[in-house]
Amino acid sequence: MVTRLSNFFLRTLREDPSDAEVTSHRLLVRAGYIRRNAPGIFAWLPLGLKVEAKIETVVREEMANAGAFEVHFPALLPREPYEVTGRWEEYGDALFRLQDRKGADYLLAPTHEEMFTLLVKDLYSSYKDLPLTIYQIQDKYRDEARPRAGLLRGREFTMKDAYSFDATDAGLDASYQAQRDAYERIFTRLGLEYVIVAADAGAMGGSKSEEFLHPTPIGEDTFVRSAGGYAANVEAFTTVAPDALPIAGQPEAVIFDSPNTPTIATLVDHSNAHLDAPAPGIAGPATDEATAWTAAHTLKNVVLALTHLDGTRELVVVGLPGDRDVDDKRVEVAFAPAEVEAATEADFAENPLLVKGYIGPWSPTGAVLGEESATKIRYYLDPRVVDGTAWITGANIDQKHVHSLVAGRDFVGDGFVEVSTVRAGDPAPDGSGPVELARGMEIGHVFQLGRKYAEALGLKVLDENGKLATVTMGSYGIGVTRILAIIAELNNDDKGLIWPASVAPFDVHVVATGRDQAAFELAASVSDQLEAAGLDVLYDDRPKVSPGVKFGDAELVGIPRILIVGRGAAEGQVELWDRRTGERETVTVADAVAALTR
Amino acid sequence: MVTRLSNFFLRTLREDPSDAEVTSHRLLVRAGYIRRNAPGIFAWLPLGLKVEAKIETVVREEMANAGAFEVHFPALLPREPYEVTGRWEEYGDALFRLQDRKGADYLLAPTHEEMFTLLVKDLYSSYKDLPLTIYQIQDKYRDEARPRAGLLRGREFTMKDAYSFDATDAGLDASYQAQRDAYERIFTRLGLEYVIVAADAGAMGGSKSEEFLHPTPIGEDTFVRSAGGYAANVEAFTTVAPDALPIAGQPEAVIFDSPNTPTIATLVDHSNAHLDAPAPGIAGPATDEATAWTAAHTLKNVVLALTHLDGTRELVVVGLPGDRDVDDKRVEVAFAPAEVEAATEADFAENPLLVKGYIGPWSPTGAVLGEESATKIRYYLDPRVVDGTAWITGANIDQKHVHSLVAGRDFVGDGFVEVSTVRAGDPAPDGSGPVELARGMEIGHVFQLGRKYAEALGLKVLDENGKLATVTMGSYGIGVTRILAIIAELNNDDKGLIWPASVAPFDVHVVATGRDQAAFELAASVSDQLEAAGLDVLYDDRPKVSPGVKFGDAELVGIPRILIVGRGAAEGQVELWDRRTGERETVTVADAVAALTR
Repeated sequence: MVTRLSNFFLRTLREDPSDAEVTSHRLLVRAGYIRRNAPGIFAWLPLGLKVEAKIETVVREEMANAGAFEVHFPALLPREPYEVTGRWEEYGDALFRLQDRKGADYLLAPTHEEMFTLLVKDLYSSYKDLPLTIYQIQDKYRDEARPRAGLLRGREFTMKDAYSFDATDAGLDASYQAQRDAYERIFTRLGLEYVIVAADAGAMGGSKSEEFLHPTPIGEDTFVRSAGGYAANVEAFTTVAPDALPIAGQPEAVIFDSPNTPTIATLVDHSNAHLDAPAPGIAGPATDEATAWTAAHTLKNVVLALTHLDGTRELVVVGLPGDRDVDDKRVEVAFAPAEVEAATEADFAENPLLVKGYIGPWSPTGAVLGEESATKIRYYLDPRVVDGTAWITGANIDQKHVHSLVAGRDFVGDGFVEVSTVRAGDPAPDGSGPVELARGMEIGHVFQLGRKYAEALGLKVLDENGKLATVTMGSYGIGVTRILAIIAELNNDDKGLIWPASVAPFDVHVVATGRDQAAFELAASVSDQLEAAGLDVLYDDRPKVSPGVKFGDAELVGIPRILIVGRGAAEGQVELWDRRTGERETVTVADAVAALTR
Repeated sequence: MVTRLSNFFLRTLREDPSDAEVTSHRLLVRAGYIRRNAPGIFAWLPLGLKVEAKIETVVREEMANAGAFEVHFPALLPREPYEVTGRWEEYGDALFRLQDRKGADYLLAPTHEEMFTLLVKDLYSSYKDLPLTIYQIQDKYRDEARPRAGLLRGREFTMKDAYSFDATDAGLDASYQAQRDAYERIFTRLGLEYVIVAADAGAMGGSKSEEFLHPTPIGEDTFVRSAGGYAANVEAFTTVAPDALPIAGQPEAVIFDSPNTPTIATLVDHSNAHLDAPAPGIAGPATDEATAWTAAHTLKNVVLALTHLDGTRELVVVGLPGDRDVDDKRVEVAFAPAEVEAATEADFAENPLLVKGYIGPWSPTGAVLGEESATKIRYYLDPRVVDGTAWITGANIDQKHVHSLVAGRDFVGDGFVEVSTVRAGDPAPDGSGPVELARGMEIGHVFQLGRKYAEALGLKVLDENGKLATVTMGSYGIGVTRILAIIAELNNDDKGLIWPASVAPFDVHVVATGRDQAAFELAASVSDQLEAAGLDVLYDDRPKVSPGVKFGDAELVGIPRILIVGRGAAEGQVELWDRRTGERETVTVADAVAALTR
């Protein structure tokens, strides 16, 4: 049945919504695809639902091709399973929690690892039952701190989440690969270029994780890749540590006056003015050519305040080369599940041994940082700060620094952390050469969870020898509504949306113009022909609307193929309009139908 | 692609779930359609999802035929719109409420009148935009006090809810009729016999409401119908009040001793032993033939405690003929949105003027009940207690009653309420004769909301004269998951489920039996043929499972047409098994395929 605009539930808007921060949000609201009901919470109008259904169909078909079966869990779930795995706490404020009338705790599920694990535990008992991959397409909830960017980061969103269950590690590898392959097919069918990057498993736990990123300069994620094939998001990038240097024979640490040098830049300037030129190789990153002090010779000490799950607050310090900064996302991952913020003035006031602007791991009276130190504050090091590297850093005395402070001799860390910024040219950890940085949008995420959830919830099966073995799992997610927004974000111009044909809400947008009844009759008849040929047709039959408004709406709504029936109708001439290229071509009705149904 | 049981995600259970109170719950869990996650909250397994999808397809097609457009609202919604209409409070404990991380109030929506109203207000402005009917198929939440009966009354459930918008009352009538007609088509296609009964609009507000009930002795709802075409659920039944009788000339009220007569039965016995026989017509229901006192001559006074929305508690008394009881559902509707319970001992202790077992509206010192009375307790009357009827009732003195107490002379009520039980033989209010009682299950509900929501939320459009007019609305609901459970409840035997073909999870269940490889090869080939012919086939290809187990599973799962490929395979013979009738017929493969694809 041809959908006629004269009675279809669609109203386009002339004005951008005032709260729209990104193009997809702005255009999807203006073109009548979605409406906002609350921050990060949207209603779907008929056009939006149709696009979402097309994406879901692609996902379902490829899940079936991967041998996965569809199920559907509730959004409202009891606390207990999430308590057992620790996620009830770990999710922090991002979890919507509520109580029922009897005071029992419930949550709105952000993902369903626990419930899938329990389902399989309920029904399966033998390795012969495995492998199994099951999935759902379902509405999920996360109470984002700053819901923004429309559907790109909502608080209610539709996700395809799949979970695999295997008796062996090799089985998990195969199940993981099957989902990974399905994701490649899905994104190819949706016309979404992708890069598969190593990712941090984060709150999901588990051993291996990869993200599918769509590379685009407007992406919110940064990833790195080498010409040799390495790719990772910055959270998962691992630093290549230099070899340790000999400590024996290195000069003693020397404290020097460094008035008004609380920043790396002022410290470097002061050093070049007052210290001898650096000896070759004295600090980690220095090279034979070093003739002046640089930020890379300094050790920057960043004080962070962690808030642990149990609510306790702990200061830690990270020491890293002064030419690097801490990367917020890498910090978040490094210290998860604790929440991290910069230390406050109050923190410094409570810890007078930390002299702001002049902090270092050592002072003439001994170690200042580290669990065994005067402050008992844990001290983590960037992997580049290997034993034998010598540094200029704070002396924990106001207006004084120290040089020739040697790692492994004058100070030791409590461990290494990956928190420094990653830079173009940094070596890839797999030896495949220097990396370059790029931006992308996350479009899918696959995890090897391993046995974490199965162990916590007791999912075991009898193995070939009749012994109980814990099952190993994977989880695989695609944000369906997010994908829709990303496609919209990538396919538009200043006039409106331009859908790829595979997900367009209709196949053809027929526009009748003018006051000639014959044009409307021809448009109706052509629409019927196209529908009979299996196309889904939106026909703009509005009788008293100007061609300009109709064309504007067609451009805004963004169906890629538009057929205009107007002045030439009497002669059987119509216009084919390609929304993406803007090209219009006058052809006969028969040719138009042939072209559209080809 | 043929679904093969050897790797399909399905495990049938031998044991009934311990918490299953009804057949549909028991069988849907045992046959692998659903799993319980929490009270009234279920996960859907592949078979269940397939049945649900078929029901949704029927609903979507008939909504499209009725000109309704599909949208989709979030389940998680902000408090404000529900506050404006009063439903945030009115829903009481049945509403799941929660707060986000910023402390803003949210709810999990039980229905979406408010949001649909606001959507149309946002987008529409003229009577020319109307009529409009939009709907969604969406997961809803109600925190039932006693979630029970599996999917029949869950706390999370899937509903089709449609809303119509019209500029005029005549328009609403037409939109209402279009949905009503669509419901008739839907239930017919789903094979669900139905009766349309007048219903109370209840918490929805509005002017007119009808329920679709499936008549069945196991139904939870009682309805009445007359041979002349009247049908209503008991909540909506209205009593035909008799004409008032003349008061003048009736004898004076007389107090009499009635020791140990706190119940109607003991009072009637006492009256027959100690009072003169009743005069014709002295009490409402007495007839000329009355020669003995009956319960119908007595006025029963029931004390109820209302809890109002603001938390205040109020006692009220209802006077009704002693041969009737108060009907809990009618009481609930009569006093909504207050909650009603029976008065407690504490209530009586606080109101010594109410002498338990001997309560009446009058005592020798004057009125005891009614707002103008000694107790100030409001007094409601059954519609049969018209002026001029005379009654035996309590005298508010222990061990004493009064007779010849005349309504309109000795006592007056504060109004009439419809709370009495309805009995077979009661006259239908439309004059179509006496009613009979029957039981049914609610399968759909249609409401004329009128202007309640549009007024509360300010939905107005310009009318033909350019003046702002408030829009009038309807709302129309079908519980999709409830319908599924009802179909299961009505279609089963002691072996398992028996789906109607229109909603069966598969079209054919092919079972290969024996150890003969040829049987499995033939079964696979027949399955492929049937799929190629457009059928959805479940093929039980499990190699080491006995025929008995396979047949038992087939009966439990309940696909209506089963094809057995076993012993006769070598001769090209197979068995067609009709799950409903139990008939098995040996036919050739070609005949079987022809019969199944016919």
